[in-house]
Order: sequence, then C-alpha cells, then structure tokens
Amino acid sequence: MAKYGFGLDLGGTTCKCGLFTAEGELLEKWEVPTDTSNGGVNILKDLAQTVVKKMDEKNITSDDVLGVGIGIPGPVSDEGVVNRCVNLGWGVFNVEKEFSECLGGIKVKAGNDANVAALGESWMGAAKEYSSSVMVTLGTGVGGGVIINDNIISGAQGAAGEIGHIRVNYTEENTCGCGNHGCLEQYCSATGIARLARIRLAQNDDDDEAKKGDTVAKEIAKRACEYLAQGLQVISCVVNPEAFVIGGGVSKAGQYLVDEVEYRFNQIAFHGCRNTKIVLASLGNDAGIYGAMKLIL
Amino acid sequence: MAKYGFGLDLGGTTCKCGLFTAEGELLEKWEVPTDTSNGGVNILKDLAQTVVKKMDEKNITSDDVLGVGIGIPGPVSDEGVVNRCVNLGWGVFNVEKEFSECLGGIKVKAGNDANVAALGESWMGAAKEYSSSVMVTLGTGVGGGVIINDNIISGAQGAAGEIGHIRVNYTEENTCGCGNHGCLEQYCSATGIARLARIRLAQNDDDDEAKKGDTVAKEIAKRACEYLAQGLQVISCVVNPEAFVIGGGVSKAGQYLVDEVEYRFNQIAFHGCRNTKIVLASLGNDAGIYGAMKLIL
Repeated sequence: MAKYGFGLDLGGTTCKCGLFTAEGELLEKWEVPTDTSNGGVNILKDLAQTVVKKMDEKNITSDDVLGVGIGIPGPVSDEGVVNRCVNLGWGVFNVEKEFSECLGGIKVKAGNDANVAALGESWMGAAKEYSSSVMVTLGTGVGGGVIINDNIISGAQGAAGEIGHIRVNYTEENTCGCGNHGCLEQYCSATGIARLARIRLAQNDDDDEAKKGDTVAKEIAKRACEYLAQGLQVISCVVNPEAFVIGGGVSKAGQYLVDEVEYRFNQIAFHGCRNTKIVLASLGNDAGIYGAMKLIL
Repeated sequence: MAKYGFGLDLGGTTCKCGLFTAEGELLEKWEVPTDTSNGGVNILKDLAQTVVKKMDEKNITSDDVLGVGIGIPGPVSDEGVVNRCVNLGWGVFNVEKEFSECLGGIKVKAGNDANVAALGESWMGAAKEYSSSVMVTLGTGVGGGVIINDNIISGAQGAAGEIGHIRVNYTEENTCGCGNHGCLEQYCSATGIARLARIRLAQNDDDDEAKKGDTVAKEIAKRACEYLAQGLQVISCVVNPEAFVIGGGVSKAGQYLVDEVEYRFNQIAFHGCRNTKIVLASLGNDAGIYGAMKLIL
C-alpha cells in the first residue's frame, strides 16, 4: 500500500502545502490563505480542512498518511511547543498536539520555518549529498538552520541557527531589528544591503551618478560577501559542517556570490575547516514543504 | 554480573587512565607515560598492556568489559580515523580498529580530547543537568567541545568545537598560532592574557610599578571577559546550548570570571539566547577520562 505525507510551510499571509510520497516525491502543491484574525485561532482548523480535502480528492485514508509536518514562523521546542509567533498572533501552546487533534489523530511534527527549510535543502536540495550542512537564507532578514546527521539542531530555546544575529562588527552604531549592533543581518539581508547603499550614496560627492551607482554597488556587494564569509568562519569553528547552503532573494546574485564568499572564507577559515563546500540553495520556495515532509519521516 | 569500562585520556607526556563501573563510578585512576619514540608506534601496545594488567589485578574478564574509550590530542573522524597527532608522532590510521586488535577484540571508541572532556563534563560534571552544552577550555590555548543531545558534534573534518579559533577581532595585527588574526585564543588563553599584559605594560609610563601592574591586570581581565562573551554570543546563535562550561587553568579565576562573562554575554546575546547558564567545569583533569568512558556507553 502506498504511503503519503504532507509538508506545510506556514507564513503570515499564506500556507504552502505539499502532498508527498513516502519517498519524497512531491505529487502536488498548493497554497491556502492564513487567517490571522482573532489571534490566529482558525489557522489549524483551516489547515486540517485543506489536508482532509486533499485526502478525499485523492482517495487517501488516514491509514495511508505517515503524518503532517509543519514549518512555523517562530521558535518551536523539540516537544512541539510554539513560543509566540507574532506574524500569526499565536501565544504559547503545543501545536503538534492541537493540530493532531484537528486531524483526527494523524501524527504531526512541527519545526521553526527557517530550520525546516534547511532540512528540506539537506534532504532533497543542494545539500542532498551531505549529512551535515548549515543553510543561510539572505532575505528581508537573514535566517538559517543547522543540520547535523540529517537532523535539525533546534537549540535549548529554539534559537539555534539564528545566523543573522551572529555579531560580525563591533563598531556598528546603527541598531539591528533585534536591538543589538553589528549583526550579520545588518549587512547581508536585502534591507541591510539597501541600508548600506543609502549610507554610502549619501557620502559620495562624485558627480557622475551612473558611475557612482555602479562603484557603490560593487563596494556594497564586496562588503556583504566579507561579512558573510566572517559569519561562515565562526559557524565552521562551532559545528564544522560539510556544506553551507546559501538561499533567499539575495542569493539570486548566483555563482558570483558563491565565488566571492568562498574566496574570502578560505582566507579566514580555521585551517581544519577550509574547503567546506558552499552551494546555492536549489529548492527555492519549496524548501519549506520538503523539510516539513522530512520532519515526519 | 558487574560490568566495567575504561576511559583513557592520551596526552603527549602521559596517558590518564580510569576504571569505571557501567554506571559511571570511577573506581580507580592512574597514569602511564606516553612513549612518542618511533612515531608513537608503541603507544597503543603500552595502553593495551596497562588495561589488561588492571583487568588481571581486579579479576575482570573481557566479557565484563563494555569497552575502552580514548581521548586523543588531534582530529578523530566519527569512524575512528586519526588525522595526524603532532604531539604523538602519529599519521593517519584507524585508531579504534588497531587499539581493539591490541586488546583482543574489546570494543574501542575514540574522540578528540577536547571534545571528550566536554562530554565528561556533560555526563558527570558541571553540565550534568543539561542535554546540550558547550565547553570552553581556557588553557595554554583555547579548546572546546559541543555536546547536543548528550553526544559530541565532531564536525565534517573533526574541527567542530574549535572555539579558540572563532574570530572575535578584525583589527588584530599579531598572528595566532593557527596563522589567522584575531582568534579568541589570542585574548582568553593563558598565553594570550600574558601577551596582552606584556604589550600593555610596555605602553604604560606610569611610575608606580605595583599600582601599574594592578591596573593593567584588571584591564586585561576585563578584555579577556569581553572577548569570551563575544565568543559565547556567536556560539549561542549557532547551537543555542542550555549551558556553557568554562574550564582550564584560566577558569581558576572562579566565580569572578563567570559573573563578568555572564554580565557581558547577556548584554550582547541575541534575545532568544539570553540567560544561557554559564558554569565552571567541575571535573578538573578527570573530565577526559569520564568523557572517554562515556564514549563506549
């Protein structure tokens, strides 16, 4: 009898959903809106409904379902307790237990969304060949996930893989979103890069605007790569992964980014960690649903 | 029938040996010299001899021995392959396989000595209550070990837990033993602290020598604590352990050190990682034999 599983990637606007075979083949994917009204009280019911509807549509019974994995935008303990998700309006409760009840007892496993995306890339994406990898997602912010022996390291307070808040500059005067100064996120996120460009352009008194823009862009890109390499330097001294996976919107800079970061990383890495593979994420927005599916295997 | 195990902590001068019950009670400990002549070719035979002699003395048969764990001063892969130990004269070979043959087939598990000491503190020492901890050993150099779910994270190239080579200063001109600049070890090891004191004393032109020494000592201690807190900041963003264990000679500064580092850590830590416990190592030189014993359980 064929077995199936569901991988859900819950965000503040929509939830991405995937129906998978037990072997990890993505059979179908779709999205449903996230209803954050009334402290997000309807979210789990809505998600249970879309899962059950898909099961009916495909003639899949509860016995055929290995489980439902879900990535959540906030800290999740190993026991499945979420500890406030501002984007959803959620407080503190056991999401695995509640969601499983909504699903008539189907097994549920939950994880932090950034960690779950890292697990997806580790399972079926760019780090498929490696049993340990660290993903760094360069988006609006900088997130990440640490995978060791094919499992997520979630941390005592669910804060492992908070790569964006590694401090890489001790002289920064501007404040990061987290309240600290000099976090990696301040230089390598999309907003961080834009911030640096604005500061730099305001300083520049060169007359040729086009040339100025080009020079500044190169300078900022170089700086972002330097800081990112610095972040990878410290990560490798802590967990020495086989590979780093670079994802998120900023990673669309592509192989240029990888080459620049790799060059700088190998200059400053501890000798025992040099030549760690650096690769671009390959699953894009599907990393989360793949990782969520992997949670239940 | 009672079961026993041996924990060995192999150094370049001596090997510390412990006979344990399966429950982790240290029944007896002793040391044997390390014979590094001829590329360390006699080391494993000598160690097998001291283990077998102890078994005879105590009327312990091979069937009563769960195994022999050994901490080694160099990188060791998860498969038991050592990759050059300069202090022993060793090249590349499978130490678990060879040592087990010397012991007539008794199971052997090997690990890097700093990681194994961290495992000892996690199992029976200062981090006994925590399933995840990171040990930082402030000795001649700065070493460490990362313990997650009661197991060592050894890293792809055996370089996980190389806490001493986390880069914490981007403007350092002096070179670390590893060839890099600005490693934690350059500020928090015994040699690092002495180096900073020498540099600082040479700069000082205050006439009162005693007062001068006192002021400089306080200043250097403060700086060491600042850098250590910085190292803990980045470690906590990567693995977010329940506790940090501070060991090694420099940690004899005691609770003063813990309080200073804790104060600074909580100022700069990512909010999700604040209030991580910081504790002093409690097993001293026995951490290695405890951790080695734990390897075989």
